[in-house]
Amino acid sequence: MNSNAASALPLPALGMSQEEFMQACKQRINARLWAAITFDDSSSKLQDGMIHACADGGKRIRPLLAYASALAVGGTIARADAAATAVELIHCYSLVHDDLPAMDDDDLRRGKPTVHKAFDEATAILVGDALQALAFELLTASGNGVGSDQRLEMVSCLATAAGARGMVGGQALDFEAVGLDQTLEQLERMHSLKTGALIRAAVRLGGLSHDQSSPSQLAHLDRYAAKLGLAFQVRDDILDEISDTATLGKPQGSDSDANKPTYLSLLGLEAARAKAEELAAEATAELEEFGDRAEPLRQLAQFIVARLH
Amino acid sequence: MNSNAASALPLPALGMSQEEFMQACKQRINARLWAAITFDDSSSKLQDGMIHACADGGKRIRPLLAYASALAVGGTIARADAAATAVELIHCYSLVHDDLPAMDDDDLRRGKPTVHKAFDEATAILVGDALQALAFELLTASGNGVGSDQRLEMVSCLATAAGARGMVGGQALDFEAVGLDQTLEQLERMHSLKTGALIRAAVRLGGLSHDQSSPSQLAHLDRYAAKLGLAFQVRDDILDEISDTATLGKPQGSDSDANKPTYLSLLGLEAARAKAEELAAEATAELEEFGDRAEPLRQLAQFIVARLH
Repeated sequence: MNSNAASALPLPALGMSQEEFMQACKQRINARLWAAITFDDSSSKLQDGMIHACADGGKRIRPLLAYASALAVGGTIARADAAATAVELIHCYSLVHDDLPAMDDDDLRRGKPTVHKAFDEATAILVGDALQALAFELLTASGNGVGSDQRLEMVSCLATAAGARGMVGGQALDFEAVGLDQTLEQLERMHSLKTGALIRAAVRLGGLSHDQSSPSQLAHLDRYAAKLGLAFQVRDDILDEISDTATLGKPQGSDSDANKPTYLSLLGLEAARAKAEELAAEATAELEEFGDRAEPLRQLAQFIVARLH
Repeated sequence: MNSNAASALPLPALGMSQEEFMQACKQRINARLWAAITFDDSSSKLQDGMIHACADGGKRIRPLLAYASALAVGGTIARADAAATAVELIHCYSLVHDDLPAMDDDDLRRGKPTVHKAFDEATAILVGDALQALAFELLTASGNGVGSDQRLEMVSCLATAAGARGMVGGQALDFEAVGLDQTLEQLERMHSLKTGALIRAAVRLGGLSHDQSSPSQLAHLDRYAAKLGLAFQVRDDILDEISDTATLGKPQGSDSDANKPTYLSLLGLEAARAKAEELAAEATAELEEFGDRAEPLRQLAQFIVARLH
């Protein structure tokens, strides 16, 4: 993450291979996150904690989706920067709070100590709080080339997706479900909030970053994102069961250990695999009218159900 | 807090006595908070926790300032509702997180069990997170009679005030200062972030809710708010020393017990009292050009340095 080098990085573009596109997006979002977080010249524990929370290790799926969605509607990478950065800030904050002892109590995240382990609990709470505020601050910045009505709609969408009727509501449901029997329907409702809402916001914000995107395009993108979010979670449950700790960056089996219901425990491995593939195909079917411009979104759907961590 | 009764409440207005105005604002903001928080028909622990966090006990200083500021620039109470509610949501979330065992570890808040005591720590973390997101969601709502450019500026102002360069940054500084010797300058810098930033945001958002407020008016209001925020904190330190637990709603002497520097420990009681009065007078001096419309803001400055809790 070094913002000075950002201008020399290759711009994510149509026609790149999946690997090139993902790499270019990842380098770009790392540079944008770095620029957003290093607001303070003097070092502080809070800023160091924010840097630790957003450091390189992540897959950056949400920013990738925001960038790919912007390209699908004919927008530009540059105008999608604020959207991509804001959704990743919300994601990073949620991980920091999720890992706290009172929540999932995880010591490792992406193979490194979690924020409350590397620093302390108070810092981890404040780091999460500050990252959430920063996400909304970023979206309002006037220099990002996006019109004020679109910026306002982005804030509205992200705030709803992040809050009690979105991600936080899903986390609360997840927490209350520990040790309880759940139906597939209840599990899907929880995940559609906990991880689905932010994935949908990422795709929608990318679409909104282009001022010419139509309501019909946004509706197709939203259905793509809803299917993809579910596919992502099914794959997560599979990986939690089949991967080892080194590949996963967190203790293997940590969700099933906590007596949390998963797609695996409800469906079994083979049916879960088939479900993930089916959801990815349904997601991709929503992209027809976008033609070649949706190639990155198609590749991402493939990646999400095939990924190893 | 009952939203059905909201329409029957007297509207806060110029010409009311200080007590009438404060009472009318308090009833109004309680009704608005209730409406914002009870988004879910089915009861949930998360929603119950959010209600607990925002329940009646508070002084509602920040919403009072937002309403009074709107009247000072010639705006209306109705258009300042979103501003008043959003700043109070941020304040309530910050108290919930502040009270956590890893932070100030307080069992009582406004004379009632804190959220993590009444529920559990995980719920308290999620309640705070959800209240923060809700504040930004509210500001973006199109039905509140405020133009989209003003709403966007409100989000920007509140996000900056709430984040690492505002309230959360101040909390981090406060936390790092425990047990350290501090100069008056360092103490003021910490408080100008920890409590001052949100008080300034409350006043500014109230001013922004009226589309005719001028940059000069907003500048005067900002200087008023900066002085007032400091006066508020000096009075807080005095109260922490001289009040008993029943009046204060939290254990008396809890800040000095934690070995945190206060204005009392640096200045002594008499000089601290004089400083609070002086700051309130300086704040009030900024209100001249507003004439009678700033009477509620003047009364609030008086109230803040004379309050008993």
